[in-house]
Amino acid sequence: MYSTEQLSQIIEQECQNLPLENQPQGLFAPIKYIMEDGGKRMRPLLTLLAANIFSDNINAALSPAISVEVFHNFTLLHDDIMDKAPLRRGRETVHVRWNENAAILSGDAMLILAYQILCRDSTNKELLIEFNKVSMEVCQGQQWDMEFERREQVAVEEYLNMIRLKTAVLMASALKMGALAVAAAPEECEELYEFGINLGLAFQIQDDLLDTYGNYETFGKTIGGDIAAGKQTFLKISALQRADQGQKRILQTNRDHATVRTIYDRLEVEQTAQAAVEKYFARAMTHLNTIESERINPLRSYALQLLRREK
Amino acid sequence: MYSTEQLSQIIEQECQNLPLENQPQGLFAPIKYIMEDGGKRMRPLLTLLAANIFSDNINAALSPAISVEVFHNFTLLHDDIMDKAPLRRGRETVHVRWNENAAILSGDAMLILAYQILCRDSTNKELLIEFNKVSMEVCQGQQWDMEFERREQVAVEEYLNMIRLKTAVLMASALKMGALAVAAAPEECEELYEFGINLGLAFQIQDDLLDTYGNYETFGKTIGGDIAAGKQTFLKISALQRADQGQKRILQTNRDHATVRTIYDRLEVEQTAQAAVEKYFARAMTHLNTIESERINPLRSYALQLLRREK
Repeated sequence: MYSTEQLSQIIEQECQNLPLENQPQGLFAPIKYIMEDGGKRMRPLLTLLAANIFSDNINAALSPAISVEVFHNFTLLHDDIMDKAPLRRGRETVHVRWNENAAILSGDAMLILAYQILCRDSTNKELLIEFNKVSMEVCQGQQWDMEFERREQVAVEEYLNMIRLKTAVLMASALKMGALAVAAAPEECEELYEFGINLGLAFQIQDDLLDTYGNYETFGKTIGGDIAAGKQTFLKISALQRADQGQKRILQTNRDHATVRTIYDRLEVEQTAQAAVEKYFARAMTHLNTIESERINPLRSYALQLLRREK
Repeated sequence: MYSTEQLSQIIEQECQNLPLENQPQGLFAPIKYIMEDGGKRMRPLLTLLAANIFSDNINAALSPAISVEVFHNFTLLHDDIMDKAPLRRGRETVHVRWNENAAILSGDAMLILAYQILCRDSTNKELLIEFNKVSMEVCQGQQWDMEFERREQVAVEEYLNMIRLKTAVLMASALKMGALAVAAAPEECEELYEFGINLGLAFQIQDDLLDTYGNYETFGKTIGGDIAAGKQTFLKISALQRADQGQKRILQTNRDHATVRTIYDRLEVEQTAQAAVEKYFARAMTHLNTIESERINPLRSYALQLLRREK
């Protein structure tokens, strides 16, 4: 078996040596730029950790892993245009450093690159069908997210469905694709998928929590960004559910961090969100634990580490 | 064998009944909008005409044909954002009718949809590899096109390479994929590809010609658009090659149709472009004629019809 550290190194090396042509430079330089500064590489790591449960030979999972990472970075590149985000991982976003047209077109090329990498070694129909499905779902999630920003109120179920599509399905499919690539049993592929869905929900709700209640050093993003942007989050939606008329009016119009947080505190939404994180994390573990093997331990540890991001 | 008219009807029906989900409506309505008003459906028709040379059963070519058409419309959708084009086929472009974010995201979903359709019946590795290759090439062509707009002078060879990537390869791959889908011999697939490349070059140079020398009724676009936009075209590049200093200055700065056309006339670039169209068309036919079968006749007729668009 590989250690998580070893898998990370393998992923990093692949991401720094993508099969890119050189010309036209204006098309490929933005792709190298966003891929070289990689962030956590969470999704490809999930793919390889999943594959490694079933096989010591994870070669067949490598292309799917990198494909998912390229796809994820494609979504960041296009989402940053749509959000008019100036920064990503502390550096200028592609549409700022180059321009919007370059960002649109390089993003398109990245989506194609993801397919090229996925088909590099072989064309596994199950992997392709899974990838086709999840990539469309991520677009659906992004569309719901944009539509929710224009709405005054969103139901908790609608919000959970949105983050399932925007965040959780890609983690779930990353895991499932790792298992599929090494020909794991269908039931095990499905358990890993459900593990990923619940882990993804826990992860996103915790992200919402940290955006308001975290601290910059460990979270790595500016605190209060969601409130400043007027975004729908698990906190805001939970608060609106129990707010009186006066609080509602403030929550729907005020974007000041301290003001909104005071209402959140009064309505105890931090506790509600924390309980939701724990609920989905526990569900995730139930699915993972159906796979009766010590070889799930690195994946369990990694999931714990993801969720134990401190305030 | 099918008549070209029958194949067109099959294509139209497929394009009006794409396998799209309903929700979120904001993601899929723009896709239906651009696909329902179809234009010539040239590329899927090339796919089916190619398949029909080798087999009376063209079912296996249908998904590749529609996939290529969806991909082509995806490129139009994103190109229109980049060009800030207000109209497409006489209707508002997607980014005008909805907004730019909707156009970016719906375009992304269309590219994924093209892959979903391509993988619908089976995963033919040759088809996937061809599709992966051509879709990246089209992005490269679009990038060169944008870069050329910022350059004062472009060599004829550079221009031909750009239109090969932006226009010709998709026609060539559409043909080749039709042949691949019905398991034609590799040599025949290649001859059809080369036929498509040369047909595509002839087609694009003729498009350049008609943009300046055509008439609105038969061309279907406003005459003089390229000159007004200061675009690099076969005419402009040919003119710059033989222009004196005074003419050069006018060609590089003036965007008035009559003024520029007077210089074109003096430098006889209409004749040069017409000769290039004929040269590439003749080359295309040489490749097509290597396939010794009467069954190529509908494809030959369609190619002639494409190029015989009157002034």
